[in-house]
Amino acid sequence: MSKKLLIVGGVAGGASAAARARRLDETAEIILFERGPDISFANCGLPYHIGGQITDRDKLLVTTPEAMVSKFNLDVRTQSEVISIDRNAKTVTVKNLANGEQYTETYDNLVLSPGAAPVRPPIPGIDNPHVLTLRNLEDMDYIIQALENKKSTAVIGGGYIGLEMAEALRDRDYETTLIELAPQVMGPADPEMATVLHQELKLFGVNLKLETSVTAFEESASGVDLILSDGDRLHVDVAVLAIGVKPETKLAVNAGLEIGTTGGIKTDAHMQTSDPAIYAVGDAVEITDFATNQPALIPLAGPANRQGRIAADNIFGRDSTYKNTQGTAICKVFNIAIGMTGLSEKTAKRLNISYEKVYVHPASHASYYPGSHPVSLKLLFDPDTGKVLGAQAVGADGIDKRIDVIAVAIRAGLTVYDLEEMELTYAPPFGSAKDPVNYAGFTAANVLRGDARLFHVEEALHPAENQKLIDVRNPEEVAGGTIPGASNIPLPKLRENLENLDKDKEYLIFCQVGLRGYLACRIMGQNGFKCRNLTGGYKTYGMVTAHQPDIIPENETTADDAGMSSVDAVKKKA
Amino acid sequence: MSKKLLIVGGVAGGASAAARARRLDETAEIILFERGPDISFANCGLPYHIGGQITDRDKLLVTTPEAMVSKFNLDVRTQSEVISIDRNAKTVTVKNLANGEQYTETYDNLVLSPGAAPVRPPIPGIDNPHVLTLRNLEDMDYIIQALENKKSTAVIGGGYIGLEMAEALRDRDYETTLIELAPQVMGPADPEMATVLHQELKLFGVNLKLETSVTAFEESASGVDLILSDGDRLHVDVAVLAIGVKPETKLAVNAGLEIGTTGGIKTDAHMQTSDPAIYAVGDAVEITDFATNQPALIPLAGPANRQGRIAADNIFGRDSTYKNTQGTAICKVFNIAIGMTGLSEKTAKRLNISYEKVYVHPASHASYYPGSHPVSLKLLFDPDTGKVLGAQAVGADGIDKRIDVIAVAIRAGLTVYDLEEMELTYAPPFGSAKDPVNYAGFTAANVLRGDARLFHVEEALHPAENQKLIDVRNPEEVAGGTIPGASNIPLPKLRENLENLDKDKEYLIFCQVGLRGYLACRIMGQNGFKCRNLTGGYKTYGMVTAHQPDIIPENETTADDAGMSSVDAVKKKA
Repeated sequence: MSKKLLIVGGVAGGASAAARARRLDETAEIILFERGPDISFANCGLPYHIGGQITDRDKLLVTTPEAMVSKFNLDVRTQSEVISIDRNAKTVTVKNLANGEQYTETYDNLVLSPGAAPVRPPIPGIDNPHVLTLRNLEDMDYIIQALENKKSTAVIGGGYIGLEMAEALRDRDYETTLIELAPQVMGPADPEMATVLHQELKLFGVNLKLETSVTAFEESASGVDLILSDGDRLHVDVAVLAIGVKPETKLAVNAGLEIGTTGGIKTDAHMQTSDPAIYAVGDAVEITDFATNQPALIPLAGPANRQGRIAADNIFGRDSTYKNTQGTAICKVFNIAIGMTGLSEKTAKRLNISYEKVYVHPASHASYYPGSHPVSLKLLFDPDTGKVLGAQAVGADGIDKRIDVIAVAIRAGLTVYDLEEMELTYAPPFGSAKDPVNYAGFTAANVLRGDARLFHVEEALHPAENQKLIDVRNPEEVAGGTIPGASNIPLPKLRENLENLDKDKEYLIFCQVGLRGYLACRIMGQNGFKCRNLTGGYKTYGMVTAHQPDIIPENETTADDAGMSSVDAVKKKA
Repeated sequence: MSKKLLIVGGVAGGASAAARARRLDETAEIILFERGPDISFANCGLPYHIGGQITDRDKLLVTTPEAMVSKFNLDVRTQSEVISIDRNAKTVTVKNLANGEQYTETYDNLVLSPGAAPVRPPIPGIDNPHVLTLRNLEDMDYIIQALENKKSTAVIGGGYIGLEMAEALRDRDYETTLIELAPQVMGPADPEMATVLHQELKLFGVNLKLETSVTAFEESASGVDLILSDGDRLHVDVAVLAIGVKPETKLAVNAGLEIGTTGGIKTDAHMQTSDPAIYAVGDAVEITDFATNQPALIPLAGPANRQGRIAADNIFGRDSTYKNTQGTAICKVFNIAIGMTGLSEKTAKRLNISYEKVYVHPASHASYYPGSHPVSLKLLFDPDTGKVLGAQAVGADGIDKRIDVIAVAIRAGLTVYDLEEMELTYAPPFGSAKDPVNYAGFTAANVLRGDARLFHVEEALHPAENQKLIDVRNPEEVAGGTIPGASNIPLPKLRENLENLDKDKEYLIFCQVGLRGYLACRIMGQNGFKCRNLTGGYKTYGMVTAHQPDIIPENETTADDAGMSSVDAVKKKA
């Protein structure tokens, strides 16, 4: 007898489950319920229609109910909200939002793909009509309408959607303030990587307010006043709330399905909930973080699609398992992208996972070929085995590629020694004979082999009595700023200056990006001196101290001098 | 006692060996001999200076002898040709090309990095002064000078350098004829992938002559006449000969070092030659092809650099091995790139390696976001285990990234099942929730799981009596051309038309890129019909038949209609 499958939610995970189910079983009865008017729309594209990059709204409709019906022979019911599940009777109650009527539908299997909803915390005045959120096409239309003939905007929250919205609003020349509670935007990234985004936001005219929250929204003529935690009052015409999303679990909770510690619906690796007849997929589900093996909420489109497919597989008798989420992600912020995969340093610290890290800043492709930009790449690895644990990268070109390459390496359990030898495409427009991924591998493997001992920025700020900072860059570079307390011995002069150095001291060496510092350490080490090299050099110092400007002990040239995003970005735009 | 290391050749492999040697041993005496005036120059960038993309010639000097001396404390001797090796005495004889003087140098270890020289076959008149080759900066300068106030050019040979030269010459508006002996350019690629390059070359005004050779060069007023194998006489002002390179082995041969069957210097995995004191690296060396385990010549910059490092490691007591060459490569041809890694189909056929293949043509990033182009990706895999064997891709965007991702997968021994699940970066400007690599994985895994039976273009051309071709695209698409003999049943109408089909026949289904054909096969298979799907659809058909236009049996609309490069490319340029 053919199965009857009900699917709740018609976007990424739900639509994937429906299509896969039909491919596996021509005879099954498949009903797809979607609360909104559209299914399978491009929710990741919404900010780009607001910003004007995607001019044609219809392009956001990846498929239509009609197309899904004709291709997949589905029963697609939009504006249909599933409001309860009777697990004993194996029925759901559906409310037709168009006419208010309710009815029940039986099921053999049920797939829940309700997604996650924007968080709206109980801040006084948050229901102000000028405080909007963005989840679907209707929200998008409403925001576009609300922006008409307006001037000033605020975005509250600096995650993916907040950043993309800030860019969209600036692209349309709105005055834009971005308010973020944390000391950094892009929460999943490590703070020093996010500093490059901070520079980029400011460069494109976003008024960035970090470590700031909105304590109240107050009515105001033709807009809303935001009362900020620093005491300021900010009037804007339109505010977009983008402080995160939370799994939509109401239906699951009311049905008594197990909910995980993170608040997402709990499933096993088959995407099966605590009720064997019911599966759950997508942003509403608690997954296991591949890097940490801990339960987590990682709302991403790729995993949602895969989970939908896997749920359908299992429902139709195939043993298909979800292999956890790595958290591979990328976000464009004006001309810069930030990408990440696997373990972050902040997570490693939180969970006490042992790691070492290196930073490199090589060119995205041969620097002599036009359009090359630095790739600032941070690599986390196991200090014993060299296994690659995680990576983050930021820059104006080639970020997606390097993160993708390392994402595969992490999945495959490769080590930094493998990264050294990775044979990647090279022609001047695309890469270098030694790709940034190779460089990161070299740098990390040098540490593990004992060829290079490293130090990190935190140590540079407070050297001990017997430690001495040496900047091995050229005097022209040093003139642009250096680490307080450092002496300058340019690398080409190092050998002739060795006799003036002290074998009882430990030398903390640095250059611009770490390469000359490594060479200096090789020279000094072989000559019997104790020394370590600053991984990522002065450029990484700039990223770290831009994040924590108050940790710089003395007068210092602005850390922005050592950054790279701004000038490169402007050049690229020009 | 400190070692004395001599290195012959100062470009990629030699310069890497020298730098690595110094990092490992501060006390070694290291002499780098280079026949030309420059070391470590960007040989891959030469065509781009000729074409005008790289305006500043100095940028091609990656490093100078002075910089190498000051950083690495080397003895760099340019214009110094090592003309013989006395292996018993452990000495070399060096000729100073500036003054003609000869002298000997002793060594403990010797690294040979002589590279490969452009092939100049014994064609009558080949020594004509208007027939030039491109290997180093001097050649480049000479070509630029020779082009001054000239109008017409020919490039002989359609490999990397030939293609890049053809582009460079067209970028400077020279009349350009590209002459290639084989039926395709870019020899390492499979022929149907190269057809996209043929279209691109023609689109940008290159006069492409395939299956054509030059039988003689004849003197002519202010230029040279090329006598072609088709009987034509082509007058050009300047001809560039780029028919390939051959290892420079004279020094090694004369010294009695073992030469491999391919003509390259033979080494073990430590890059050690048949003389334990002598190592060889780079384009002059015979490597083992990672995909086939056969000896091969694969002259690429990345491997050369790695080999230089490995030779130095072993000389200074580290057990470091070269892990063979995958042949990961990429070439830009106007707005198109072609990339490849691992096994090609032509190599698989030649060596009788068992494989299956799929083609996909998904968008480089979310198609609703501007700048998206199709990625035509061919994946070879083991039909038993699913292990990924090789990939080739062509298109205007995102080619390098997909080939790099698959290159890592091949190195790690991953399967097409792993590609299905690969978690890659996704945001609309960079990718799709299902990346082209995932798509290729799905498509291949569907074959292995028995969910999709495939057929290939060759079968579509000559269907058997009991086979019937069905085009499941929409009538508007079919109007633009289809496979001769195919009936049209649009996918949305398929279910209602099943009753008219014959269960005794085998249906050969196709659509534009393979996805709807797959859905059609799922429907038909579950309803008891025999059917297979054309992998890559009509688009792949267009690529294959454009390569072999004479294999199309009947009147057919031009295969170009099914191609994709041209229009996309022009759009991108505009």
